[in-house]
Amino acid sequence: MKLTILGCHSATPRINTNPTAQVLEIKNHLFLIDCGEGTQVELRRNKLKFNRIKHIFISHLHGDHYFGLIGLISTFRLLTRETELHIYAPKGLKELVTLQMKLANSWTNYQLIFHELTSNESELIFEDDKVEVYTIPLDHRVYTNGFLFKEKPGERKLDMNAVLNEDIDVAYYNKLKQGFDVENNQGILIKNETVTKDPTKPKSYAFCSDTAYNEDLVHIIKGASALYHESTFLDKHEKLAKPTKHSTAKQAASIAKQAEVGKLILGHYSTRYDNLNDFELEAKTVFENVELAKDGKTFKF
Amino acid sequence: MKLTILGCHSATPRINTNPTAQVLEIKNHLFLIDCGEGTQVELRRNKLKFNRIKHIFISHLHGDHYFGLIGLISTFRLLTRETELHIYAPKGLKELVTLQMKLANSWTNYQLIFHELTSNESELIFEDDKVEVYTIPLDHRVYTNGFLFKEKPGERKLDMNAVLNEDIDVAYYNKLKQGFDVENNQGILIKNETVTKDPTKPKSYAFCSDTAYNEDLVHIIKGASALYHESTFLDKHEKLAKPTKHSTAKQAASIAKQAEVGKLILGHYSTRYDNLNDFELEAKTVFENVELAKDGKTFKF
Repeated sequence: MKLTILGCHSATPRINTNPTAQVLEIKNHLFLIDCGEGTQVELRRNKLKFNRIKHIFISHLHGDHYFGLIGLISTFRLLTRETELHIYAPKGLKELVTLQMKLANSWTNYQLIFHELTSNESELIFEDDKVEVYTIPLDHRVYTNGFLFKEKPGERKLDMNAVLNEDIDVAYYNKLKQGFDVENNQGILIKNETVTKDPTKPKSYAFCSDTAYNEDLVHIIKGASALYHESTFLDKHEKLAKPTKHSTAKQAASIAKQAEVGKLILGHYSTRYDNLNDFELEAKTVFENVELAKDGKTFKF
Repeated sequence: MKLTILGCHSATPRINTNPTAQVLEIKNHLFLIDCGEGTQVELRRNKLKFNRIKHIFISHLHGDHYFGLIGLISTFRLLTRETELHIYAPKGLKELVTLQMKLANSWTNYQLIFHELTSNESELIFEDDKVEVYTIPLDHRVYTNGFLFKEKPGERKLDMNAVLNEDIDVAYYNKLKQGFDVENNQGILIKNETVTKDPTKPKSYAFCSDTAYNEDLVHIIKGASALYHESTFLDKHEKLAKPTKHSTAKQAASIAKQAEVGKLILGHYSTRYDNLNDFELEAKTVFENVELAKDGKTFKF
């Protein structure tokens, strides 16, 4: 899994900082998560191929999370895209995009499929044979979801020494990988676990922005390989976090700790702070494995 | 008058080129003309003060001319703007902006006043004591207006030698500037034209983008100090210009020549061309005073 941060700052696009957008490469997918103004330029800057994006996930309809979307949809059209595009977003976005296309009298030549989200429960919104995506209901000023991207468990791994020792025919290898017991060449039933090993632990990535401190999401993201959690404020401004339904770095770390995630990535910094290292220092007082998101930075996990 | 080009390329924002947006400084106004994606970042880059913008003129509702507007409106709110903002744009934009604010549950704390344009005739849409702005109906795939920004004639200038010679009381100087004949200290009527000079010729700027070649606009922009006219294509691609309702550099120059403007500024280049100098060379075969728009370039006239 590779995560590229296209933008990780709150509120407004500036000369050197972009609003929220990131790309997750997982099992040959290129998932775009949020799409602030300027996202298409950042995709170019990071040499991410436009036509590999087939699924876009929008957390909520505040501008710094989606004002780049209609431009991207429009650019796809100009690039004569034919592949269908799926957009997972709060209800309302379809009406908006449709109105914009109507006013421009410019309709996409590719299929644009909206998956409008309305549920307040975590739900499965995408699935193929290798990946699942779930919503993570968040607590913000408007209807907002985070997203949990999960690899499905892979096949069991053959312990080749044991397999050869037990004299199992090659025709049964696939059944073994799928977890079945099989008979060997002597007709003896071989227990699967004696000749295979557990598959690599499936990885998962949780994106949680924007949200107030919200322990309800801990059970959904439990054990995620990595968690991106917004930290708009430092602890000294906690009184601003509450009414605006944002989090502090300390609160983000507390969620990471309770959810026992592998790594915490902080982002969505308020423009009031010059020194972002304070976010990392503060979070590390609660949870050890913390990294700061930065526009253009990539994370592998 | 000072014109700052924030973006002058067609279609999509790219790493080093921006879609249409420009700022005209005229008689202490800072008029924003079109507002493609990325405009607010370009305003910052060009150190143009956000709170000096009180009037925004949108030519048409194709994305490369207005996708940066909602973000700018939203940023004004975050900057706690209180000054009212006037937006002159085709009908439909108000509905769109209102829907976006509704979905975000974020309403401006300043007054947002839409002047929705629907007329197919040139009309006066803004006027104060020093400036007038008229629409210029253009011929494009959707309803589109250019804009003509005109200084009003200033006061007559006193010929101080003549004024002193004629022994006119200082109390009458303002009447002279306003064009009246006055009596001198000896009670003799002094003809205005014998003691004053014509005011500086008022300047005007015409913005025409996007449009097919359209001679109907010649009489509206006649004698303008400067004309920005789109030139999406070179003459060799004229067959593309027609169905897309765009112009070639040669056609833009032909309009400039017929309208006897002071200077022609070309822009809205298609991304297919690497060498923009060809636009200038081509236009100069028809009209001499041609300059190329370039993002970040300023023109004074």
